[in-house]
Amino acid sequence: MLKTPLPLGSTIGILGDGQLGRMLSQAASRLGFKVVTFGPDVGSPAAQVSLASKVAAYTDEAVLARLAESCDVITFEFENVPAASLDFLTGKGAVVAPSSKALRITQDRILEKDFARNAGVWTVDYFPIDSVEDLGNAISEHGPGFESALLKTRREGYDGKGQIWIRKGDDIEKAYASLGHRPAILESKASFTREISVVAARGWNGEIKTFPIGENHHVGGILSTTLAPAQVSEAVTAEAHEIARKVLEGLDYVGVLAVELFVLPGDELVLNEIAPRVHNSGHWTQDGCLCDQFEQHIRAVAGWPLGDTSARCTVEMTNLLGADILDWPTLAAEPQSRLYVYGKDEPRAGRKMGHINRIK
Amino acid sequence: MLKTPLPLGSTIGILGDGQLGRMLSQAASRLGFKVVTFGPDVGSPAAQVSLASKVAAYTDEAVLARLAESCDVITFEFENVPAASLDFLTGKGAVVAPSSKALRITQDRILEKDFARNAGVWTVDYFPIDSVEDLGNAISEHGPGFESALLKTRREGYDGKGQIWIRKGDDIEKAYASLGHRPAILESKASFTREISVVAARGWNGEIKTFPIGENHHVGGILSTTLAPAQVSEAVTAEAHEIARKVLEGLDYVGVLAVELFVLPGDELVLNEIAPRVHNSGHWTQDGCLCDQFEQHIRAVAGWPLGDTSARCTVEMTNLLGADILDWPTLAAEPQSRLYVYGKDEPRAGRKMGHINRIK
Repeated sequence: MLKTPLPLGSTIGILGDGQLGRMLSQAASRLGFKVVTFGPDVGSPAAQVSLASKVAAYTDEAVLARLAESCDVITFEFENVPAASLDFLTGKGAVVAPSSKALRITQDRILEKDFARNAGVWTVDYFPIDSVEDLGNAISEHGPGFESALLKTRREGYDGKGQIWIRKGDDIEKAYASLGHRPAILESKASFTREISVVAARGWNGEIKTFPIGENHHVGGILSTTLAPAQVSEAVTAEAHEIARKVLEGLDYVGVLAVELFVLPGDELVLNEIAPRVHNSGHWTQDGCLCDQFEQHIRAVAGWPLGDTSARCTVEMTNLLGADILDWPTLAAEPQSRLYVYGKDEPRAGRKMGHINRIK
Repeated sequence: MLKTPLPLGSTIGILGDGQLGRMLSQAASRLGFKVVTFGPDVGSPAAQVSLASKVAAYTDEAVLARLAESCDVITFEFENVPAASLDFLTGKGAVVAPSSKALRITQDRILEKDFARNAGVWTVDYFPIDSVEDLGNAISEHGPGFESALLKTRREGYDGKGQIWIRKGDDIEKAYASLGHRPAILESKASFTREISVVAARGWNGEIKTFPIGENHHVGGILSTTLAPAQVSEAVTAEAHEIARKVLEGLDYVGVLAVELFVLPGDELVLNEIAPRVHNSGHWTQDGCLCDQFEQHIRAVAGWPLGDTSARCTVEMTNLLGADILDWPTLAAEPQSRLYVYGKDEPRAGRKMGHINRIK
């Protein structure tokens, strides 16, 4: 752990080289840090804006060892980095945040929900699924009123990948096969009225700061827009912040994380999932707060005081997926907005190419 | 010239590798451009955050030729880049903005003031000085009421370097010798009540956008703070914007420039100098506007629509010079502020190490 703040000019390593790494790197540079990125792709979004980049598999111990040597602290932008790689870095003397423990728990949907319940955070009902038989039993447990539930792989799904809705009467054998018979989880359907998320940070010293709540709209399982600060009651805000605190403290977390929540009728909150990293639903903070989520994460892992998370204005963040980015001439001409482009070459369908923050 | 906007993923070259190049590079990346910096120093502030950097003298034609080949447009962050290097790049087929013509004029205090007067912009009285005799004559022309005037080198001075006050009765031989007998200019003293600057941009298509006025305070010839939008009358704002327009159009300028103005009693405006680049007095726009001066410059040279320059709030920008930066733990903990650190190693006295924008 870090006992004193990292001085200016220190080097921060980032595992993962996508747009989150890119924006983390830019925030780190703004604070005077040097950045080394580590990921599988040459010329990645993060590498383009960083002092140095190491191109290797996340399991490449020789390169990991060199990263450990050259960095004062190492973090990640991608929750599917192997937790064992973090352990390896720690074994080589590196300071790593968030911890491999936090990553291990949040990488596994069962461990994550077990953790949440132990921490006093309500989740939907869930059932570990390791066979078609498990799946059948889980559906039976829902009783005769069963309408639908969501089957997800335990690990490695994101943006709607690795999940499938099971509806009454569906061929469950086929459904489970579509996930490649991998270890899975069946999540009961939450009849929510809206989806919100809370992005929050915790420092090495236990200091916690929470951003205003964002309201999220997904299309096809991928986040489309976030409006923040969300129009929710003070009670919902307070409860969401309390959930974030329980998660951060329960995981002994250092850095920024996002907690996605369902708001049920009556304003009860149910945890959907935890992202152990900066999160798409926090991009609005780049124009809505003086300290955005990227700078906040860097501050947290570097042992700096956490930044000011108060909202300057209301922002609607819209993701630019695939060919959406081709509208850049129009988007760039919009007043009261700011455009972010991730430096990816091919605008494949559904690929996150950029986003735009519009001041409302 | 550029007839169509540069597409995403295009490469922008930046001559000069200091903090202005660093912040230009970060703005360019945010819009999806790739950046190559060109300057004399290894590991420079700009190179740290850019895809690539070429380390060479500004006159190194072999390296300039390679830059011309690899970039879709080339700009600069430093007004002392040789204008001949821009001509060389243009000769190699590169698109360069601002032009070498604009650079040549603004590099020379006499040409600059001649240009301003021809463009209908008032300046203080000035006298070309090429000898001690010229200096004596210029002082005589002030008449018996002469109190003081500012002797500056014609070229290459900045931040109070290369200039000296001449006061009644001073040893003018010694004064001129202190500038190394270089070609100089004697500027009559302007009895101003305040110093303001206007940062403005012009695109390839002639579109002009102007930021709100900043009020500047210098200490020891170096900018200390800028408060913006400045508390000036509408008439002063309109006049300053009109001056910016005359300068931009007169220079057939593409990109961002700053015009420093003296406000005389009675609110008359006198041009102090033109900086043919993004400018320290425009740093407040990073937190005061949705499109800051760095993004605006990139938009202008890339042929993109110019961005929204309206003020979101009042900002006080304070430069962190030399050892000021060592206060970073306190500065980083200030609410309602944002800290920018330039990635320079040694906090030498007077060296610009970073700045802080405080929301007022």
